[in-house]
Amino acid sequence: MSLLLVAKNRDFTSLKKALLEKDPNVDVEIWPRVENKERVQFAVCWNHPKHVLDSYPNLRAVSSLGAGVNHLLNDEDLSADVNICRLITSSLKDQMAEYIMNAITNFRLHTITYADQRKIAKWEPQSSIPKKYAAIGIMGMGEMGSDVATLLLQQGYIVNSWSRSKKDLQGLQSFAGNEELDDFLGQTKILVNLLPLTDETEGILDLEVFKKLQKPGYLINVGRGSHLVEEDLIYALDTNHLEGACLDVFETEPLPENHPFWNRENIMITPHIAAITPAKEAAEVIIENYKRALSGMDLLYEVDRDKGY
Amino acid sequence: MSLLLVAKNRDFTSLKKALLEKDPNVDVEIWPRVENKERVQFAVCWNHPKHVLDSYPNLRAVSSLGAGVNHLLNDEDLSADVNICRLITSSLKDQMAEYIMNAITNFRLHTITYADQRKIAKWEPQSSIPKKYAAIGIMGMGEMGSDVATLLLQQGYIVNSWSRSKKDLQGLQSFAGNEELDDFLGQTKILVNLLPLTDETEGILDLEVFKKLQKPGYLINVGRGSHLVEEDLIYALDTNHLEGACLDVFETEPLPENHPFWNRENIMITPHIAAITPAKEAAEVIIENYKRALSGMDLLYEVDRDKGY
Repeated sequence: MSLLLVAKNRDFTSLKKALLEKDPNVDVEIWPRVENKERVQFAVCWNHPKHVLDSYPNLRAVSSLGAGVNHLLNDEDLSADVNICRLITSSLKDQMAEYIMNAITNFRLHTITYADQRKIAKWEPQSSIPKKYAAIGIMGMGEMGSDVATLLLQQGYIVNSWSRSKKDLQGLQSFAGNEELDDFLGQTKILVNLLPLTDETEGILDLEVFKKLQKPGYLINVGRGSHLVEEDLIYALDTNHLEGACLDVFETEPLPENHPFWNRENIMITPHIAAITPAKEAAEVIIENYKRALSGMDLLYEVDRDKGY
Repeated sequence: MSLLLVAKNRDFTSLKKALLEKDPNVDVEIWPRVENKERVQFAVCWNHPKHVLDSYPNLRAVSSLGAGVNHLLNDEDLSADVNICRLITSSLKDQMAEYIMNAITNFRLHTITYADQRKIAKWEPQSSIPKKYAAIGIMGMGEMGSDVATLLLQQGYIVNSWSRSKKDLQGLQSFAGNEELDDFLGQTKILVNLLPLTDETEGILDLEVFKKLQKPGYLINVGRGSHLVEEDLIYALDTNHLEGACLDVFETEPLPENHPFWNRENIMITPHIAAITPAKEAAEVIIENYKRALSGMDLLYEVDRDKGY
């Protein structure tokens, strides 16, 4: 039995080291130089090339290397018998909550405006936006969304959420399903996207959504680049439906040098760093799921392939 | 009896309106056009010109328009019989805590670096600084310092404090007095200054202090501009004793256009906006202290003129 790591242009040195520290008996293979394909029973993948996973006849389960699993769900060649799981650690959730809190505070306190003003020696106080006028709307209430909502409520924010089913959290206003989307948006000023990427959520962040926010709205996208219709964001900014955005994920990453987002003062860009899984914590979850897969147990953070998350 | 508002180049329209909404019977005068100087028994001042307060023979008490009172303590003509108080509101404390949290998170997550990278279309992830390597040291544990420490402890930070007397707060490591200053600094990476400005604290943020921080340190100054020896900050950055600073207050405000701080990528500059008192909340505290002064009661946030805070 062996555990396979698959990703393009990725240095797996520290993850392999952490896996062997966690369990010295695990046989770790790194794609593409796999010694014995028949021994591979568990794989950890990030954006794997097509047909790569076809070569392992005894594959039982595949873990994403992060919270997103669309690259696995979109692999039509992946047998329905192969279980899929996400990789979520407590540190990942903490980082995401902190990133979002920082993005919200930067917007409310005009931090980036001050950073820009410094470059031209400009001293000009801005009026910060009180929390009561900065209602947050979280799309996607999985592991991360719930943690973020809890933190924001603790800090005195108005928090709305939108998800497939209603959520019960003290102080939270929970909206569910497509029929409640407009109500959710109408009570939201700062929209935070934490949805999984599925056929239904691809392109969900479009002009129609931006128009329904408390005007002008603000967008924080920490889901996937394909959730956002990029030209709609530009249009919404130009027409004042949005007054700004903070983006950590993009359709194409790294964001191409000639991309129009770079030239927008009111778009904050970070290079997909909101939540980085530390190797040691990743190794713990991966080893646990590897052992569960071998013994036929349910996986941690297992994905329902029909729902897509 | 009347209540006098004194400040240069300040529009008191909204404060006067809020005072009259709170108590329509209060007679509010605005310097320099004071109708009846003998009726003035209470003044609210911010950086008042010399000798301005000499003209009111029946003055009983003076409130600062903010948390700082050095402009009042430095007024040698102000009779010892006149009581002095600060103006602190819960919103002021919340704002200060939020500003400091934002400055800390921006430093740990390299927010300003990403804002600068955006200007040159540069996609370059930075390693964020984990909380365990970002021990916070708060100088000054008055109303604001205690609130900030509580919030930081809740968020899982290591927090040290330095003040005249020891503070008892769950999880806080409290240092007191000059003999413990070096220990305090040696266990601190991010230094937050919330001290009052007195003869003893003026110029306290100097090269000797920066050298004793966990290297390289980071400075957040939300006290007063005169706490900082400005040339020592530049030198500490050049010699890598500090890796950056976030400053909201300056020796001269607005910060002059030719000031060297503007050209430093690792100095975040905000135009004295960390904590702005809302007129309505200010009016409530002012009216309360006005009435206390008239009836000879102790004032809220009264200052001990010997201690200087």
